[in-house]
Amino acid sequence: MEELTKYTQYLEKEISRINFGKEPRNLFDPLRYFLALGGKRIRPVLTLLSGDVFQIPKEESIHAALCIELFHNFSLIHDDIMDEAPVRRGKATVHTKWNSNIAILSGDVLFVEAYQQLANYTDTRLPLLLKRFNETAVEVCRGQQLDMDFESRKDVSEAEYIEMIRLKTSVLLGCALEFGAILANREEKTRNSLYQFGVSLGIAFQIQDDILDLYGDPELFGKQVGGDILSNKKTLLFLKAKDRASKNGDSRFGDLLKMNSAREKITFAKSLFEEIGARQSTIEVMNLYYQLAIQNLKNLEEKGLNVSALFKLSAYLMHRNV
Amino acid sequence: MEELTKYTQYLEKEISRINFGKEPRNLFDPLRYFLALGGKRIRPVLTLLSGDVFQIPKEESIHAALCIELFHNFSLIHDDIMDEAPVRRGKATVHTKWNSNIAILSGDVLFVEAYQQLANYTDTRLPLLLKRFNETAVEVCRGQQLDMDFESRKDVSEAEYIEMIRLKTSVLLGCALEFGAILANREEKTRNSLYQFGVSLGIAFQIQDDILDLYGDPELFGKQVGGDILSNKKTLLFLKAKDRASKNGDSRFGDLLKMNSAREKITFAKSLFEEIGARQSTIEVMNLYYQLAIQNLKNLEEKGLNVSALFKLSAYLMHRNV
Repeated sequence: MEELTKYTQYLEKEISRINFGKEPRNLFDPLRYFLALGGKRIRPVLTLLSGDVFQIPKEESIHAALCIELFHNFSLIHDDIMDEAPVRRGKATVHTKWNSNIAILSGDVLFVEAYQQLANYTDTRLPLLLKRFNETAVEVCRGQQLDMDFESRKDVSEAEYIEMIRLKTSVLLGCALEFGAILANREEKTRNSLYQFGVSLGIAFQIQDDILDLYGDPELFGKQVGGDILSNKKTLLFLKAKDRASKNGDSRFGDLLKMNSAREKITFAKSLFEEIGARQSTIEVMNLYYQLAIQNLKNLEEKGLNVSALFKLSAYLMHRNV
Repeated sequence: MEELTKYTQYLEKEISRINFGKEPRNLFDPLRYFLALGGKRIRPVLTLLSGDVFQIPKEESIHAALCIELFHNFSLIHDDIMDEAPVRRGKATVHTKWNSNIAILSGDVLFVEAYQQLANYTDTRLPLLLKRFNETAVEVCRGQQLDMDFESRKDVSEAEYIEMIRLKTSVLLGCALEFGAILANREEKTRNSLYQFGVSLGIAFQIQDDILDLYGDPELFGKQVGGDILSNKKTLLFLKAKDRASKNGDSRFGDLLKMNSAREKITFAKSLFEEIGARQSTIEVMNLYYQLAIQNLKNLEEKGLNVSALFKLSAYLMHRNV
């Protein structure tokens, strides 16, 4: 996708140009390290593309885009501590390469750097940018806490799971897109359509990620397949399978949870979830959210806005390897 | 001090009225718990008093004051994790009462709540409030990192120590005071005098705290005496003693570091630091910063500003039990 390549290159250049402090090195080196690990930069691209819709030059929307990306990276650094994740994007996480204290504090300072980016807008757009960013940041924290709470709960419902991923991952995509409309001083209805497009796309994307975790091609997916099922993570796929097995009095779901061999467990889950229709049902929910996303784009198009790049990006993101 | 009592009562009421979220409880309960532990509320009082200087009603400066106080509490929650501190203000710290993950995340959300307070100012004052707050927050993180770095360093100089406490504790007092002037749209020189008053007062106050840690009356000081020396913490008092012992070829400082009995070590440190003039020299540095603080207040007074409450508060803070 041409727009994506153009903008990710621009973003990489601008990220490398951010003037973090130098001393103390234990505070700032982890930031440079972590940001250089890359990633798809989907969120800031959304802000740049959203700005494009309103003819905001990328040099003007870049600060809002960087705000979103820095916040995202801050949340990853802290999440990695909480999840005790040793690896991120194929490299050691900050708390592994340095230590947890350094990861906490460099995360904190990265959070401030996100706000520093917003502070570049010194005009009447700042109050709304700040308000929406704050609201989003609180929601992301709520999502992360729910995710942790769910680990020790046995009664998580599908609706609760969707709400958790909405908060943890999707509202930030919504905010990234809404920023473009705020920068263009657009009215609430337009802002809201972009926001809802992002939130729905984010939910669809996360559900797809859950499906790919089990059914993805390991080589194309880029990470180990089956991690979720090995840890009995309560994804939508898992919850659907549990629900269907329970309704059918099918004891195989209980058997699955007790399996020890990783390879066998993954193979068994794949066929079981397929057979009892959990995979198909999960795909249907994913498609529902994707359609919701597209509907919001159509609403914007009907207003005469050129959202073709956002249509293209949505299709690109949702046609990975399902 | 009447102004202090009046404003701390007002602050307690306003803090208890902050509308934190409810769910998930593991995210928001720690905030209510931690903020209810109290504390002297010196920083937000400084903002209210600074607003007073320019006839800003407390109902207008309260959000800036709360921003400072919430940020301060956020930094304490995260510092307590890093320092593995079990107790704060006589009660269990958040990471002890809940766990480290909850302390990281509820700290993060409290940081956002600080920014939410700033977002109440939706006019032309917001950009400068946000910019100065961001700059201060980065400095506080730098100070905390330096403090951690110093633990494993043997060559910390007095100047480095002063710079560390300036960043870790004093710039926030400066920012708290500068906020009053920003709310009143005052020019840079006035803002700067208030800021420098706060920074200098903060350094003097921290040095006093270091002295009281060894020489304070345990009952009046309100915490265990001698904690710093038992952990060989490189305070100014410690560095002065080390420097003097080294210059005099006095081996007793080396003996002190090796002592095992807590009571003996404290008693020995008290008399040794007194005898070699480290205590007196530390008091002189403290007084120097106190005078710097007062000089800034005098400059403001010469401009016709009524800073009498700030004079009173400074005297009150610096005449604890030295």
